[in-house]
Amino acid sequence: MTHYSEEMNKLKDTILAMASHSESAVARAMRALVERDDPLALKVEEDDNIIDQFEIEVDDIALHLLTKAPLATELRFITVAMKISQNLERVGDEACSIARRAHDLGQEPQLKPYIDLPRMATMALEMLRDALSAFVERKPEVARTVIPRDKEVDDLNRQLHRELSSYMVERPTTISRCLALMVISKCLERIADHATNIAEEVVYLYEARDIRHAGLKENHEAENPGR
Amino acid sequence: MTHYSEEMNKLKDTILAMASHSESAVARAMRALVERDDPLALKVEEDDNIIDQFEIEVDDIALHLLTKAPLATELRFITVAMKISQNLERVGDEACSIARRAHDLGQEPQLKPYIDLPRMATMALEMLRDALSAFVERKPEVARTVIPRDKEVDDLNRQLHRELSSYMVERPTTISRCLALMVISKCLERIADHATNIAEEVVYLYEARDIRHAGLKENHEAENPGR
Repeated sequence: MTHYSEEMNKLKDTILAMASHSESAVARAMRALVERDDPLALKVEEDDNIIDQFEIEVDDIALHLLTKAPLATELRFITVAMKISQNLERVGDEACSIARRAHDLGQEPQLKPYIDLPRMATMALEMLRDALSAFVERKPEVARTVIPRDKEVDDLNRQLHRELSSYMVERPTTISRCLALMVISKCLERIADHATNIAEEVVYLYEARDIRHAGLKENHEAENPGR
Repeated sequence: MTHYSEEMNKLKDTILAMASHSESAVARAMRALVERDDPLALKVEEDDNIIDQFEIEVDDIALHLLTKAPLATELRFITVAMKISQNLERVGDEACSIARRAHDLGQEPQLKPYIDLPRMATMALEMLRDALSAFVERKPEVARTVIPRDKEVDDLNRQLHRELSSYMVERPTTISRCLALMVISKCLERIADHATNIAEEVVYLYEARDIRHAGLKENHEAENPGR
């Protein structure tokens, strides 16, 4: 039993280490964008394999724990850990995608100072951190605070999309840069989605109530107010 | 044991039913686009909750099976089923996203006949079907044929992105339509990514070799040939 709970702790620690790498990848990709730091952008892409390796490690530990006939609550914890790891791996992919656009944008003059994108990044990263700490500290109430914040990031993404669209119409020479910025905005929106997925899993885990897709539905309607 | 294998079959059947709904959502969203069928686009969005319900059902069956101390091979099968279901749920989300753009595009004159997008959709759906049949028929060799096809869909998406970018520069009045088409192209590319994820899980399941992220790495390099 001691050995078993040691392995459960290892699962938790590995998720936390993975989360810290994923968060740092996003933060560094954004710094590469804002500071036009091309070597840093490249580094983010190179380091993505570390996050990928973590996903495999989490799966290995989880599968091993599952062979030991865990209790129902432990079982849920283990499967949620696997889902969280899948979401973190995708956060890493989004960070790479941001880094790639940061590289592209570094080849051209800067369009204007970045304000909304760093703000979105800060919001998405806070959501991610709160969802993860809710997981390890068994605080579903913290996870619940994450879910409504997804809408704010969605709104910022939509607003930026509209602004950039108009800008492109007025100044077609900026189209390629505007497109790159739209991609980055969408990546940040997706990172917030992953944080929300994790938060929903954590609520499900500790409150034994399935709120997945309830939250999604709300966002859906918000995205189509006229329908 | 009979009861147990009945439940394993139910898990498989539920995944197949879910896959059929997800595939149909993509096919109908594309038909809504090509035939400018707005009620169909709306229907795709409405029906997304059916796919969401399937995800919850798969999880419930899987969690119940996991409480019964399955053998190591069964255990892997069950966790892979949960991952497949998560990918299928996201395929449903991409279908909704396509349907939403089909609705937007239906409000404006058509830019030009759609050729590449339906082609991409056909490719992505074939990948999805092959990955799923590899899963149920225990054929990792079929799953292996899916993985390299992801690059073809990626290439088509990149090509279309380039074409639409140039088109926008030449005719700024088409920008909003071009952006909608870019989003659809990206959605199809993501559906192919989900098919690839499923295929990689199936190879891992039946060949006990982890090929996840090996494939991803190749794509990564392909996407940045100059780096």
